[in-house]
Amino acid sequence: PRAREAGVAPGIYQPGPLNAITDVSGVQVGHVSLIEGDDIRTGVTAILPHGDNLYQNKVPAGYAQGNGYGKMMGTTQVIELGELETPVLLTNTLSVPEAAAGTIEWTLAQPGNEQVRSVNAVVGETNDGRINNIRLRAIKPEHAIEAINQAVSGPVEEGSIGAGMGTVNFGWKGGVGTSSRVLPDENGGFTVGVLVQTNYGGELHIMGVPINAEALNTAAARVAQEASPDGSVMIIIATDAPLSDRNLERLAKRSFLGLGRTGSAMSNGSGDYALAFSTAESVRRTTARRAMLSRIADWPNGEMTPLFQAAVEATEEAVYNALFKASDVRGVNAERYPQLPVSAALQILRDRRAIE
Amino acid sequence: PRAREAGVAPGIYQPGPLNAITDVSGVQVGHVSLIEGDDIRTGVTAILPHGDNLYQNKVPAGYAQGNGYGKMMGTTQVIELGELETPVLLTNTLSVPEAAAGTIEWTLAQPGNEQVRSVNAVVGETNDGRINNIRLRAIKPEHAIEAINQAVSGPVEEGSIGAGMGTVNFGWKGGVGTSSRVLPDENGGFTVGVLVQTNYGGELHIMGVPINAEALNTAAARVAQEASPDGSVMIIIATDAPLSDRNLERLAKRSFLGLGRTGSAMSNGSGDYALAFSTAESVRRTTARRAMLSRIADWPNGEMTPLFQAAVEATEEAVYNALFKASDVRGVNAERYPQLPVSAALQILRDRRAIE
Amino acid sequence: PRAREAGVAPGIYQPGPLNAITDVSGVQVGHVSLIEGDDIRTGVTAILPHGDNLYQNKVPAGYAQGNGYGKMMGTTQVIELGELETPVLLTNTLSVPEAAAGTIEWTLAQPGNEQVRSVNAVVGETNDGRINNIRLRAIKPEHAIEAINQAVSGPVEEGSIGAGMGTVNFGWKGGVGTSSRVLPDENGGFTVGVLVQTNYGGELHIMGVPINAEALNTAAARVAQEASPDGSVMIIIATDAPLSDRNLERLAKRSFLGLGRTGSAMSNGSGDYALAFSTAESVRRTTARRAMLSRIADWPNGEMTPLFQAAVEATEEAVYNALFKASDVRGVNAERYPQLPVSAALQILRDRRAIE
Amino acid sequence: PRAREAGVAPGIYQPGPLNAITDVSGVQVGHVSLIEGDDIRTGVTAILPHGDNLYQNKVPAGYAQGNGYGKMMGTTQVIELGELETPVLLTNTLSVPEAAAGTIEWTLAQPGNEQVRSVNAVVGETNDGRINNIRLRAIKPEHAIEAINQAVSGPVEEGSIGAGMGTVNFGWKGGVGTSSRVLPDENGGFTVGVLVQTNYGGELHIMGVPINAEALNTAAARVAQEASPDGSVMIIIATDAPLSDRNLERLAKRSFLGLGRTGSAMSNGSGDYALAFSTAESVRRTTARRAMLSRIADWPNGEMTPLFQAAVEATEEAVYNALFKASDVRGVNAERYPQLPVSAALQILRDRRAIE
Repeated sequence: PRAREAGVAPGIYQPGPLNAITDVSGVQVGHVSLIEGDDIRTGVTAILPHGDNLYQNKVPAGYAQGNGYGKMMGTTQVIELGELETPVLLTNTLSVPEAAAGTIEWTLAQPGNEQVRSVNAVVGETNDGRINNIRLRAIKPEHAIEAINQAVSGPVEEGSIGAGMGTVNFGWKGGVGTSSRVLPDENGGFTVGVLVQTNYGGELHIMGVPINAEALNTAAARVAQEASPDGSVMIIIATDAPLSDRNLERLAKRSFLGLGRTGSAMSNGSGDYALAFSTAESVRRTTARRAMLSRIADWPNGEMTPLFQAAVEATEEAVYNALFKASDVRGVNAERYPQLPVSAALQILRDRRAIE
Repeated sequence: PRAREAGVAPGIYQPGPLNAITDVSGVQVGHVSLIEGDDIRTGVTAILPHGDNLYQNKVPAGYAQGNGYGKMMGTTQVIELGELETPVLLTNTLSVPEAAAGTIEWTLAQPGNEQVRSVNAVVGETNDGRINNIRLRAIKPEHAIEAINQAVSGPVEEGSIGAGMGTVNFGWKGGVGTSSRVLPDENGGFTVGVLVQTNYGGELHIMGVPINAEALNTAAARVAQEASPDGSVMIIIATDAPLSDRNLERLAKRSFLGLGRTGSAMSNGSGDYALAFSTAESVRRTTARRAMLSRIADWPNGEMTPLFQAAVEATEEAVYNALFKASDVRGVNAERYPQLPVSAALQILRDRRAIE
Repeated sequence: PRAREAGVAPGIYQPGPLNAITDVSGVQVGHVSLIEGDDIRTGVTAILPHGDNLYQNKVPAGYAQGNGYGKMMGTTQVIELGELETPVLLTNTLSVPEAAAGTIEWTLAQPGNEQVRSVNAVVGETNDGRINNIRLRAIKPEHAIEAINQAVSGPVEEGSIGAGMGTVNFGWKGGVGTSSRVLPDENGGFTVGVLVQTNYGGELHIMGVPINAEALNTAAARVAQEASPDGSVMIIIATDAPLSDRNLERLAKRSFLGLGRTGSAMSNGSGDYALAFSTAESVRRTTARRAMLSRIADWPNGEMTPLFQAAVEATEEAVYNALFKASDVRGVNAERYPQLPVSAALQILRDRRAIE
Repeated sequence: PRAREAGVAPGIYQPGPLNAITDVSGVQVGHVSLIEGDDIRTGVTAILPHGDNLYQNKVPAGYAQGNGYGKMMGTTQVIELGELETPVLLTNTLSVPEAAAGTIEWTLAQPGNEQVRSVNAVVGETNDGRINNIRLRAIKPEHAIEAINQAVSGPVEEGSIGAGMGTVNFGWKGGVGTSSRVLPDENGGFTVGVLVQTNYGGELHIMGVPINAEALNTAAARVAQEASPDGSVMIIIATDAPLSDRNLERLAKRSFLGLGRTGSAMSNGSGDYALAFSTAESVRRTTARRAMLSRIADWPNGEMTPLFQAAVEATEEAVYNALFKASDVRGVNAERYPQLPVSAALQILRDRRAIE
C-alpha cells in the first residue's frame, strides 16, 4: 500500500487528489527502468514542470544543498538566474553525463529551439552501486530522452522504478516516492508536490517512531542492520504558488526537515539536494517577459510558512511511499535488498498508537 | 525535571556527565536575567569556548543559517576567516547592539589586548517581545559584561533564565536548554555539546509524538493553541573534536534537523541560526599559529557522520530541556505564558510508549 | 576638485546631474563628523533609500561580500528576505553597536511604528584606528540618529567627513566618495548611484595607471609607501531600476570589479562589502504588498549587463572622488595622513595620456 | 609573442620560469583540438594537479562563482568536501557531459580505482558557438581521455588550442592563456599559476589602457566592435602554498579582480568560474589522511594577501596571453574571428607609456 492507505499520514495538511507531485497542475513524470542480466538494475526519472517549450518558457526555481557529496549538475545557473529551462532528470551517480547529454539533445530538438546554443541540463543522482553494477554505466542518452518523452501527468509510479530502481534507503530497498499537500484557501489554496529518489540512511523513524531493524524480526532485517548511513537523496518540489526564486530556494531548504524526521542526519557520504520550481503562469519566464520590463506575481514572504510546512510534510510522506512501494531487488553480488517489512512496521506503529 | 530524568532520551548516543554544553572541556556559560516591574523580562547568556584570552587564541568556527529573519551579528567574519575571537552572546532582538558593545568593551579590557583595535562580536538573539517590553531595550552593555564574567564551567542553569527569560516555544514558555553527546571510542570519543535559546514555533513533537495543545487539556493550552509559529532559535554547538571550520559549518547545519524533529518548519518569521566551534587545542588559532606555517589537526570528512548524528540528537534534547525547565512567566500585557504541562505531556508519551 | 572635474572620467556611461548616489530619486545622505581633542576623528554616514517610512515600505535589496574581515551587521536578514527596512549606517569598526542602537531607536520612534518589535539595523564600518582613537568608542546612538535626521537629497559632501573622517586609502587619506551613471534609454534609462567609504589598500591605480607613492615625489609619499593593504571598504549602491533582490545581489557583486580597477586585491584584513537596493516604487514592499498576492515589476536577467557595467564604473569613480576630496588629517599618534597629492597624480595621468 | 615578451607585464610580482600554471610543481596540462570541415572548431583541455592517483590522493580545492550563467559541473562536492579528486576538464558548453563521461571512465580505469563507484568529475566550459557548430556536439568522451593522457608538465601551448579553439574574447579571437607568479621568500616563496579559457567580453583594457576596437583601425576591428559582452571564462588556479580549502576559495575569488582589470563587468550571459587547488604534499588528502586524525599544514589567514595579489596579476596576464597567442579562426558562418591586432595594440600601449 501507499503509506497513507496504511494510515501513515504525517502532518496537518491534506494531500491533493493523487497525493503526488503531479497534483501540481502541468507537472509530468516519466520513468525508464533498466534491468539486464544479473547486474544492471538502474534507471532514469524525468520531471517536467510543464508541457510547453521549457527552454522558451522557463520556470522560476530555487536550489538547496543539505549535504553536497553528490554530482548534481546544473545548479550554478539555477542559483544565478533563478530559473529552470529543461526537465529535471534523476539517475545514478556515474550516469549523470549521459542523462545530461540526453536532456541537451532533447532540448535542442524541440520545435522552436533551432537557434539554441546553450542548455543548462539539471540532473540529480543517487548511487545505486550496491544493487546495480554502476561502473558499467549502462544509462545512455536515449534512456533520458525516453524518460522525458514518456512523462505524463496523472498518478506516478513509485518504488523500484526509474531512478529508484537500484536505491537503498535505511538499509531497505529504496526508490521513488511522491506526495503532495493542498493548503487551505486562507493560505492561498496552493498545492505543493514532492518527488524523492531515496538512497540514504540513518536511524529510520516513521511517524516519529524508531523502526529498528532488529525489532522487525525478519531475516531481511540483518541486511538493513549493517547498512551504511551513506547514500543520497534527491528531492524535487513543485508548486503552483507564484513564488520568487528566493522563496523557492527557501521552500527547497525546508524539505531537509522532512528528511530529518525520517531519521537522516545528512551523513558525510550523502548527496542531499533539493530543487523547487513554480508552475504558476503568473511567474513564468516566457520569451516575452525575458525581453522587457514585465509585471510578475509575488506571494509575499510573510505568507510563506504554510508552504514551508507543506514541503516538510510532503517530503516526509514521499519517503514513506518510496519505502512502502519498493519491491525486493537482488543486487549485483546476488545480495538481496529486501523491502521494508511493511506489515511488521505497521504493527509497531499501531502498538505505539502512531497510527490507528 | 530535565527531559532525560523523565525518560525523554532521544537518539542513539549517550550524553556526557552534565548532559550540557559544558561537557566539552573548557566551555563556560553565564546568565544575567532582568526582571523589573511588570514589563521587563529579559536577559543575556554568554558562552565562552575557553577560559584563556579568546582574542589571542581564537577557535575555529562554522556558521549555518536555517532561516535568516534575525539580527545575528558577527557572521560575515566567522564565515570568511573560519574563526571566533570573542564569547558568544545571546539576548533579545532589540538589544543586540548593547550585548555587542559589552562584548567589545570586555574584549578590549582583557590583559594582552591593549593594542586591539578590531573585535568581531558574535551576538545572537530571539524576540522576547511577547513577554518582555522589548521596545524599552532594557539590556545594557554591563549586563553582557556581567554574563561573561559570571560564566563558569559545570552544570548550566536552564529554562527561564538569561537570554531565555522571555522566550516562547511552541506557545509554551521557552528558554535556555542544553544537552550533550559523547561518541564511542571507535568514533573518536569526542563530545558534542549544544545550548539553545528557544523562541520558535510549529507543531510540537516530543520523541516523535505530536503534543497537541488541546490534548493537554489544561487552561494553559489555550494560549499555546493560538501561538504564532514565528520567533527564533539560537543553537550554539561546542565540540572537542579537532574539526576544520568547514566541518564545523557542516556540523552546525545538522542542528536544524534536530529542530525539525521537535516540530519546526523554520517559519518565515523565525531567525534560526547555528554556530559551532571546536575547543581542541590542536586546532586552536594561537598567536603563534596565526603568524606562520603550522601543523594543525584534522578529523577527516569520512569520519564526520557520528558527529552529525550527535549534533542532531543533542539539539533535540536541548529543546526538550528548555521546555521542561521553563517556568511560568507573566508577560508584558499581564498575559501569562505557562510552562508546558510536563506531567500531562509525559503521560501522552507513556501512553504512546515513546518513553517508559 | 572632484575626479571628473579634473578629467578623470572612467567608463563608457555618463553620470547623472549630481554625479552622486542622490541622482537616484529619493535617496538621501547625512553625515555627522566627530573631531575632539587630539584623538577623536571619526563619524557616521546615513543613507536613506527614500523619505517615507522605511520599515513599513521596505525596499528590495541584495548583499555581496568581497572579503568578510569586517563587522557589517544586518546581512543575514537582507539575504533571507531580500529587503532593507532601515537606513544604512556607516561608521567605525568598534562603533557598529552604537550606530545600530541609534538606527533601532530612530525606527521605533517613527510615526506608524508604534507596534514594531523587530528591527533589522544595517550597519557597515571600516577601521579608522590609524587616525582615530577607536578604542574610545566615541560614537553614540545619538550620532547615528543625527546622521539620519540630517540626511538630505541633493549634492553629497565627500572626503574626510562622516564615516570617512578617519579612513586611509592606499596609504593616503581616504573618505566618503560618490558617483553615478545614467543608462541610455535603450537600456532602460535607469540611474545607478554608488557611495563608498574607503579605507582599503593595495597598489593604487587611477584610470588604469599605477600611481606609485614614490613617483609622487613628495614628503607625504613616505607615509603612503609603508601603508598596509588592510582596511576595508563599504559600497552602497542605489538604483531606480525595478530589480529583484537576486539581481540586486548580482549588481552589488559587480562593484568589487570597480574596486579591483583601483588596485585592490581584497586583502585578508579588509572588510569589503556591497549592498544594493532599488528605489523603484513598482518593486517597493509596501504594507499592502507584503500582506497579499501582488504584481511587482521585474527587469529581466537578459537586460542586466548595462547595469552591471554602470555599477563597476560608478564604484571606480566614487573611490577617486573619495581620494580627491579628502583633506589632510592628523591622526592619533600625531602622525599626519596626507591627501593624495592630486596635482602630481594628475600630471602622471596627463603624461600617460590617460586624461587630457 | 606572449604578453610579457612584448613588455606587457602587469603587477608587482615576478612570474615563474615558464610563466605558466605548470610552474606549480606537478601540474600537467593537455590539449585536444578538433578541426573538422567548415564548422567544427572546438576542443578539450585537461589540467592535472599531480601525476599520482588523483582519486586516492585528493587535493584541497576551493571554488568561486563570478557569474553563474554556465554549466560547470562538479562544484557542489568541491564546496562540501573542499577537495578535488579528478583532473579538471575544460570544453564547450554543450559537450560538458562528454568531457565528464571521459573523466569518469579514465578515473575508473586507473590502477587502484577498481572498487571506485563514485567520481566527482569537474568540468568547465565556455560557449564556442560563434565559431564552432556547437549543436553538433562533436566532443566525445575519448577526446577528454586523450586530453588527460596527453597532459604534461613544462610549457603550455596557448591561444586557439584545446578548449580555447573556438572562443571569442572582447570580440577578438580568444583562447587558452596561462601565467604565474612567484612570491618573495618573506611571503613564503610560493608559486601561483593560472590557466584561463577566455570567451568573455566587455571593454577591453590592457595594462589599464582602453583598447577600443576602432582605434586599432583595421578591417578586423569591425567584427570586434559589434561583439556581445556575453560568453564565459574559466579560471583554474594552482598553488604549492599549503592552503586550507577555505583559503583556496578566497584565492579563487580574487581572480575575478584580474578579470575586471581586463575590462569585464561579468555580463549577464557569462559563466565566470574559478577553481583553485593546492598541490602541497603537506595538505594532500591521501588515503591515509582521509581515514584518521592527521596533522596537516596550514598557511595562516594573516599571510594570504600576497597570494591574493599574485592570483589577480596572474589572471590578468593569462588573459593577455590568450589574446596575444590566439590565431585567426574562420567560424561556422564563414565569419572570420581575427586575432587582436597585437602590433597596433602594443603601439597604443607605447603611446600611452604603459609599456616601454
